[in-house]
Amino acid sequence: MRIIGIDPGTAICGYGIIDVHGSKLTPVAYGAITTTPDKTDAQRLEILFNDLSDILAEYKPDKFGVEELFFNRNVTTAITVGQARGVILLAAEQQRIPIYEYTPLQIKQAVVGYGKADKQQVIYMTMSILGIREKIKPDDIADALAVAICTAHSSHSDRLTRKVQL
Amino acid sequence: MRIIGIDPGTAICGYGIIDVHGSKLTPVAYGAITTTPDKTDAQRLEILFNDLSDILAEYKPDKFGVEELFFNRNVTTAITVGQARGVILLAAEQQRIPIYEYTPLQIKQAVVGYGKADKQQVIYMTMSILGIREKIKPDDIADALAVAICTAHSSHSDRLTRKVQL
Repeated sequence: MRIIGIDPGTAICGYGIIDVHGSKLTPVAYGAITTTPDKTDAQRLEILFNDLSDILAEYKPDKFGVEELFFNRNVTTAITVGQARGVILLAAEQQRIPIYEYTPLQIKQAVVGYGKADKQQVIYMTMSILGIREKIKPDDIADALAVAICTAHSSHSDRLTRKVQL
Repeated sequence: MRIIGIDPGTAICGYGIIDVHGSKLTPVAYGAITTTPDKTDAQRLEILFNDLSDILAEYKPDKFGVEELFFNRNVTTAITVGQARGVILLAAEQQRIPIYEYTPLQIKQAVVGYGKADKQQVIYMTMSILGIREKIKPDDIADALAVAICTAHSSHSDRLTRKVQL
């Protein structure tokens, strides 16, 4: 079973791919798709979509995990990250990869075993579980790997069934 | 010159295509792409993307107009509409159609000549300008045609250059 976790964003989109054999999790590939602010929203979304589509086609994950978005911050940011998330979900759906969504609480519980763990604890445990010794930057990559671990630990019942509320 | 205006949404996405000959604006096609809540977000985004891509390929507009999103409402809605907007912008960018964005104020001024016009005035003037006598429902279609009119009235200097703020 191969799983990809995604931390969505237009400027930086982290991804982490792991293989699952029983209880053993092995990192396969990880990195970040980045776009620069000299481009328009639409140009950045196209780069993100194309690069992620290429990664999905190359690594052929069986499951696609992504964090549910919650924002207390400004709504403009929510729209921008929502736009990135839209093309990310489209890329997964086009390749018929089942999509799973998790709350930050679920991810922390899966990785650290404690829903109130701080960001550094989550990163530390993610690297420890996957046996990654190198320092990975930006944090978006570790966040994506944490989502992949959470997806690996979760059952099929978590399959995304959330409906759009409009 | 052919222009498409879009009113983004996942449940209902209005579109309106007009031709511009000098000061004369003629409706070409209009309607709504709709998706049902029995599907996942990702499935709805794929339908929206595929249907809009087909419309763009068929009518080959020279300009693509879309309303800037402003939300005072809840952030969850902003993320959902942002997701729809992401795949809409991707569809336009993939077909290399220049994208123009307008605020609600700019659209009202272009259509009614008055930035504080109410929704019904905008719909009435949109139909009047385009010589459409039939009652069009849902309002998302008239909103999309209003964006198309605004795009027709605006100069090349409005070309989308807004950058993602992250």
